[in-house]
Amino acid sequence: MLPKIETSTKKLEDYQHIINKKQFEEIKVLANDLKGLKVAMVNATPRGGGVAEILRSLVPLMKGVGLKAEWYTIPPQDDFFKVTKEMHNALQGKNYDFPFSHRKKYLRHMERTAKLMQDMKPDVWVINDPQPAGVIQLLGNFHPSICHIHIDLSAPNEEVWDFISGYLEMYDAIVVSSKDFVKPEIKDKAVVFPPAIDPLLSKNVPLDLNSAKRILQEFGLNPNRPLISQVARFDPWKDPLNVLQSYKIAKKKIPGLQLALLGFFEAQDDPEGAKVLKVVQQAVGKDPDVFLCADLNLLGKIKIDDFVNAVQVVSKVILQKSIREGFGMSVTEAMWKKKPVIGGKASGIMMQIRNRENGFIASSPAKTAERIVELIENPGLSAKIGQEAHLTVKSNFLMPRLLRDYLKLLKKTANGNRKDINFQARKNLMNTLACY
Amino acid sequence: MLPKIETSTKKLEDYQHIINKKQFEEIKVLANDLKGLKVAMVNATPRGGGVAEILRSLVPLMKGVGLKAEWYTIPPQDDFFKVTKEMHNALQGKNYDFPFSHRKKYLRHMERTAKLMQDMKPDVWVINDPQPAGVIQLLGNFHPSICHIHIDLSAPNEEVWDFISGYLEMYDAIVVSSKDFVKPEIKDKAVVFPPAIDPLLSKNVPLDLNSAKRILQEFGLNPNRPLISQVARFDPWKDPLNVLQSYKIAKKKIPGLQLALLGFFEAQDDPEGAKVLKVVQQAVGKDPDVFLCADLNLLGKIKIDDFVNAVQVVSKVILQKSIREGFGMSVTEAMWKKKPVIGGKASGIMMQIRNRENGFIASSPAKTAERIVELIENPGLSAKIGQEAHLTVKSNFLMPRLLRDYLKLLKKTANGNRKDINFQARKNLMNTLACY
Repeated sequence: MLPKIETSTKKLEDYQHIINKKQFEEIKVLANDLKGLKVAMVNATPRGGGVAEILRSLVPLMKGVGLKAEWYTIPPQDDFFKVTKEMHNALQGKNYDFPFSHRKKYLRHMERTAKLMQDMKPDVWVINDPQPAGVIQLLGNFHPSICHIHIDLSAPNEEVWDFISGYLEMYDAIVVSSKDFVKPEIKDKAVVFPPAIDPLLSKNVPLDLNSAKRILQEFGLNPNRPLISQVARFDPWKDPLNVLQSYKIAKKKIPGLQLALLGFFEAQDDPEGAKVLKVVQQAVGKDPDVFLCADLNLLGKIKIDDFVNAVQVVSKVILQKSIREGFGMSVTEAMWKKKPVIGGKASGIMMQIRNRENGFIASSPAKTAERIVELIENPGLSAKIGQEAHLTVKSNFLMPRLLRDYLKLLKKTANGNRKDINFQARKNLMNTLACY
Repeated sequence: MLPKIETSTKKLEDYQHIINKKQFEEIKVLANDLKGLKVAMVNATPRGGGVAEILRSLVPLMKGVGLKAEWYTIPPQDDFFKVTKEMHNALQGKNYDFPFSHRKKYLRHMERTAKLMQDMKPDVWVINDPQPAGVIQLLGNFHPSICHIHIDLSAPNEEVWDFISGYLEMYDAIVVSSKDFVKPEIKDKAVVFPPAIDPLLSKNVPLDLNSAKRILQEFGLNPNRPLISQVARFDPWKDPLNVLQSYKIAKKKIPGLQLALLGFFEAQDDPEGAKVLKVVQQAVGKDPDVFLCADLNLLGKIKIDDFVNAVQVVSKVILQKSIREGFGMSVTEAMWKKKPVIGGKASGIMMQIRNRENGFIASSPAKTAERIVELIENPGLSAKIGQEAHLTVKSNFLMPRLLRDYLKLLKKTANGNRKDINFQARKNLMNTLACY
């Protein structure tokens, strides 16, 4: 059996005051049809990244409405994760020739993983992202099975896409976050629904402004001067240099401007993160108004969620200048907190932000700086945009909606288990063959 | 490098008297555009079966018109071939749960095979049948590449089809013999053209009737009594028991009727063949008018092609009662020799035989026997059907036509090498990523 992650149970009723009545009732009806359904959710890792965060809420909610959902991870292996990290980057468009030795490493780890899955017999498999996707070729009767890809597939590297889309074809359904990610190879089996955030997590319940200001003061930020921030790993895809440039341009108009870049990573897992941080540090130079935070130890007794929350609550504008984004849960979190967000032109972000309605989309640092200045100088606009942003999240991107979409898909997939329509013909064939 | 099979060069001009002028000119023009194109043809084995027979003529013909075509086989391995034999049967519809250990064996042999292919750099790859198809997931930049599947895919086992279709998706084009084999998973990349026979091979140039009769006499057959025959491996898919039943029923009307069942196999390679032969032998019992030939040694000094040729030339009616047939080159060979053929309801056969026009299609032994009697009692009908059959093959199923279809496909595939239409966007992305 795969390593199993312990999960709690969450009651749908706890979300009742946030979501609308129709959605609540819809979930109840769907869940009633699926009571006792054994769902095995599989992903690469128990923590780190949006997928683990989603599963940590979604699986307990599934259990809460009566499904027998469980969360499993594949066995970890450094060598393998190095390869899948490159595959991930390539699927977002980076050059990568995906050499024989890497393909072999991937396949060998699929063998090890599939071996652990042989005797598991859930009613439905849900496999998340490319790391475990390849097990399907090794397992007989691996149906019904769903593969959920959370990556920005708008312009994938062809080597890795060819490889992965071959496996995706073998699944009964493929979930992607945006219709931009429905490539021709998967169009027949694609189901589109975006991820969601859990509004009941402590990091998503806004701190009061004064407590937030107090926390920031401890870290040397001046809560009475305007602050902008980006919360994102130090990763080229998040383009922190673009953020820094935008800040520098905006600062010419708003001299008191401060910037916080929060991107926590565990150094041993992420040599690239350390490299990117260094590049950013060099670009920042000696500017005392830029606050870079990558080290969890810096936080002392304050919990990371509280710290991030404080920065977001105090920020006048929140940036997410990603080049690629499968969805971008940090955007959703900021919007949920009624903040005006300026996002990059990535599919996942444009799925959430309608330019000038509930946030802004901007590519170049110059345009981004213009928006920063406009928003800081116009608190009325910020408030209006922030309110719109909150409503967008409330209607579209909260966990119960994701639960509903999953229940719908599970119902369809579990019932749609492939029947042999050629039953009689097959029987005749077997009778003939049996004569020999 | 993969094991290379030595091949001769064949001149297209040698076929000029058989094919029509238009086809001859068409090939010349196509070949002119493809001069020097390095084509690597890969299949499982240098001999045995229709694919090897096709490559043995097609590759020399490609060379003859100016391509740099080569024929390679994958390294042989008994364990692996046992698995791929089961996969083959399953793709034709047989039950098979395709267990983990078999999938693993397949993948491990793909690793070994791909390793040998890494440094080969043809302009176009042509991979034949499922045995080598899986190498594509292990090789970077394996394009342009064509996969040619010669199997009857009309009603495949889903486990193996899911597995194989995943790989097929990765190719630039997939060739199948019939539109019946274009399953939804491959419809976007499928190209349909049937195989062909080489009319210049000694086995396809008819013996004169008297020499043929003399040969048969040596083997105890009476050339003055009516003979029917099936030339096919002793294999459940060829349904020799159906042939025997048909013969027995027809013999009630035509007491002098003789039956020859020729199915040569090398026992060590084909334990199933020995088993099927035994079942057929038991069903034949002591009937002196049934001639079973499975042992090459029986032929003495006579070459197998000459013996088969002799049986076909003397036969009044030729049977091919296959349940599944990707194409059925023995049908084509008999039709080319102007023989009336009664074929089973298999896609590959129905592609060649239009019932009552250039042959007959029949399932049950009773119906088959009716046709046998009708044809033997009516030599005029036999001659008319035989003549139609010959013309069908001449227009559709001779090697130059297959060469033409391949040249067309190679031209399209070689030119259609995937260009990155997002070149500028990709360049911008790389520039951004390069900053970190």
